[in-house]
Amino acid sequence: MTGFTIWLTGLSGSGKTTIATSLKNKLLNSYILDGDILRTGLNSDLGFSEEDRRENIRRVGEVAALLSDAGIISICSFISPYESDRDMCRKVHARKNIKFFEVFVNAPFNVCEKRDPKGLYKMAQSGKIKNFTGIDSPYEEPRHPDLKLDTHLYGISECVDRCINMLKNNGIKV
Amino acid sequence: MTGFTIWLTGLSGSGKTTIATSLKNKLLNSYILDGDILRTGLNSDLGFSEEDRRENIRRVGEVAALLSDAGIISICSFISPYESDRDMCRKVHARKNIKFFEVFVNAPFNVCEKRDPKGLYKMAQSGKIKNFTGIDSPYEEPRHPDLKLDTHLYGISECVDRCINMLKNNGIKV
Repeated sequence: MTGFTIWLTGLSGSGKTTIATSLKNKLLNSYILDGDILRTGLNSDLGFSEEDRRENIRRVGEVAALLSDAGIISICSFISPYESDRDMCRKVHARKNIKFFEVFVNAPFNVCEKRDPKGLYKMAQSGKIKNFTGIDSPYEEPRHPDLKLDTHLYGISECVDRCINMLKNNGIKV
Repeated sequence: MTGFTIWLTGLSGSGKTTIATSLKNKLLNSYILDGDILRTGLNSDLGFSEEDRRENIRRVGEVAALLSDAGIISICSFISPYESDRDMCRKVHARKNIKFFEVFVNAPFNVCEKRDPKGLYKMAQSGKIKNFTGIDSPYEEPRHPDLKLDTHLYGISECVDRCINMLKNNGIKV
């Protein structure tokens, strides 16, 4: 059994969690890695400085590669705003010869801000959260993602179908 | 599919790697975590100070719990000389309701020293390695391991059989 990694990147509120959950239900032997799981365990020693956020993503990339190497489909759901960090994760997978799919979960800023599922935009705008991606911290859009999902245009089932098609087109039996 | 963790602890040369490899071959969906894998990836930022060794084991415990939660049998092979570190790993598993079996892989110091599969005892004795467990750093024997394997008394197949029996006695279908 060979695993691989689906890396969902995008703004808070872009739809990563919804897509990750639906994908998990479609794909056997899959496992979601997200901030909620990692920040309370492996990465509980890390804060939100630029350095710590980078280290957070580095570790996620390594753990995803371990899970995939063990035969699991790792579904990673992280804002992961920096291209260099995402590239680092891709390289970790390449070194182990594990497939890595970068999926850009996209919606315009004002749409994400309006959805605000965790109330984080409100907190960031009132200054309660600093360095919030899209407000006072940049989001570097993927230039060559394996897939781009415009969640303001497609519904969830369309998004998941597109992910599954991407896997099939890459020779993965789903 | 529910995973669990087998934690092999013991001196260098006690037989952890041999047992881990044989167990892996017997157990479907199992994966070995050891120093070689972790130190070159996830834990490549860590050295060998007491603090870093502790952090190394903490992260291994967290990753083993993630793998097990994803349905994998995690076979961890680490000297892990400190009882408090092993207990920390056990607690991480207990919090997630994942079974954790501590297996004390035991052989007398002089036997391990003679086996010296990696030539590390020689290097430690000549002073090329500092803080080497059993020489200038302590090994705290498990007081209540789930299983103790005396590898100077039993052969490899006997050791593996005893591991498998331990699992069966704990309601795990192998």
